[in-house]
Amino acid sequence: MSPDPGFYSIIDYTVDGFDTQHELVEAFAEIQERWVRFYPGYRSARFHVSTDGTRVYNIVHWASERDYRDFVETSDTEGRMAAIRAALEGLSGRAEARMSGAPTYTVVREVGPGPQRPGS
Amino acid sequence: MSPDPGFYSIIDYTVDGFDTQHELVEAFAEIQERWVRFYPGYRSARFHVSTDGTRVYNIVHWASERDYRDFVETSDTEGRMAAIRAALEGLSGRAEARMSGAPTYTVVREVGPGPQRPGS
Repeated sequence: MSPDPGFYSIIDYTVDGFDTQHELVEAFAEIQERWVRFYPGYRSARFHVSTDGTRVYNIVHWASERDYRDFVETSDTEGRMAAIRAALEGLSGRAEARMSGAPTYTVVREVGPGPQRPGS
Repeated sequence: MSPDPGFYSIIDYTVDGFDTQHELVEAFAEIQERWVRFYPGYRSARFHVSTDGTRVYNIVHWASERDYRDFVETSDTEGRMAAIRAALEGLSGRAEARMSGAPTYTVVREVGPGPQRPGS
């Protein structure tokens, strides 16, 4: 039923402007390179920045839920969390997490281009 | 500098459980089909649902910012907004928007798989 067997984690922050937005992306990209990108099944981390400078989404794509769970179980979670805390403390501005509940996602539906569906 | 010339809108809701999550995806997929997917430059809408049943992200991909702006200027925004309100009112549970500021995004950086970058 799913159009996409992949598994995602979504990291979502509000920030106080373009400079902080840029700094957050740079810092979190480095965290991916140091702590995440070499684990099996890692596909990508894509940093989405809002055009008004107030928000950053990092969408991390794994080949499967199993790969993500293996990463969580075998990686240095404490070290990674400490690196994230240090990254946030090193920002010149403010960033606030907007995550709620489990940050893990599947894509259950995709709507591609097509004709207008008539109203019922 | 951007790895991706695309343009995105991100629709972000908290919901009160798996049933509402499923209903929200179905309702918003129908809105894409009736109001959005036939405009030039529309690429896809991908519905991400959290594994704990509390959240839905719809990430709508446009070929360019120009295509998105043309869609906003030439489409029936009032009709679409009314359809979104009706969809939310038709849910059996509760959904709360988590968008803040402009919901439009660019992807400024992507980190692919690679070797572990050593710490400094």
